[in-house]
Amino acid sequence: MYEGAVQDLIDELGRLPGIGPKSAQRIAFHLLATEPADVERFAGTLLRVKNEVKFCSVCGNVAQADVCRICSDPRRDPAVICVVEEPKDVVAIERTREFRGRYHVLGGAISPIDGVGPDDLRIRELLGRLRDGVVTELIIATDPNLEGEATATYLARMLAPMGLTVTRLASGLPVGGDLEYADEVTLGRAFSGRRRIE
Amino acid sequence: MYEGAVQDLIDELGRLPGIGPKSAQRIAFHLLATEPADVERFAGTLLRVKNEVKFCSVCGNVAQADVCRICSDPRRDPAVICVVEEPKDVVAIERTREFRGRYHVLGGAISPIDGVGPDDLRIRELLGRLRDGVVTELIIATDPNLEGEATATYLARMLAPMGLTVTRLASGLPVGGDLEYADEVTLGRAFSGRRRIE
Repeated sequence: MYEGAVQDLIDELGRLPGIGPKSAQRIAFHLLATEPADVERFAGTLLRVKNEVKFCSVCGNVAQADVCRICSDPRRDPAVICVVEEPKDVVAIERTREFRGRYHVLGGAISPIDGVGPDDLRIRELLGRLRDGVVTELIIATDPNLEGEATATYLARMLAPMGLTVTRLASGLPVGGDLEYADEVTLGRAFSGRRRIE
Repeated sequence: MYEGAVQDLIDELGRLPGIGPKSAQRIAFHLLATEPADVERFAGTLLRVKNEVKFCSVCGNVAQADVCRICSDPRRDPAVICVVEEPKDVVAIERTREFRGRYHVLGGAISPIDGVGPDDLRIRELLGRLRDGVVTELIIATDPNLEGEATATYLARMLAPMGLTVTRLASGLPVGGDLEYADEVTLGRAFSGRRRIE
């Protein structure tokens, strides 16, 4: 509908996840009105991400170097590994400041519908990290949905003979939520996972 | 929270209108997983938009050349000009295929709150286009909100002595809408603008 480059930009923006045609148009005109230097910096960052960002050879998290900041931090407990689906889960857990161990990013979850099987995830790399006996506990922190649960079950069964403690993050009522609005599965989990008040 | 370039990209994306931190993160990881050639094309389009896109010297719409496609199209009626706020309004009207005249893009609407007065809009350029007497009708198609109405009233008063027909797009019930859900102002306009069924 627009001439030349403007329409190209709207088309490119519309291909990004969660951006519809109206948002793409709005962002394109915002960029048209932005200082050229700012747009150049944005374009440069896009290119830099593809060139600079690597994935940590140990845990699979995004990293600037061959090994990420967490894996190369000697203050992080090497005996506990928290297994997550994506790099963004690492960020979410780091925000809680509850966990002082290391991570393993699977790169997704088992999902037959999307054609993702165990071989498509970084499970072989996880087994490699368990071989030297340093790791004593594995916390499985995959998403609390169908795919995440399937992945957790698969991992727990596979790791059972290895003699390490395998745990799963607690399911239950979200803090600050209303009991009334919790779905039945969550409420059921909250009951079965109830804890004695001490 | 992320290392280096990933966080830079999330920050850049988060500055775009309508993109919150969660969307920015989602788009950044989508781009990380995108083919390098596609990201390069996207970055190239961003730079191209700033270099190539001009504004039509006649109507102010976005254009690839000095004069836009509509202003240089001899099949478009030069006697009717439709005055709009933004280039996206031109696209919206073109989609209706109802209008065969030309456009004039003001570049906004009068808004004392945002510090936008008549001198900040392309009104002088509009007067220049009316000087040779070719234009006989001016359709004011600014937005049906406070700023758009103020701009329409300002233009209508200023143009009154010039002897050309100045019209305003009809206000009323949106087609496909529910009368029950129309606000009072719209419903009032629909009454005052009622038309005889022929």
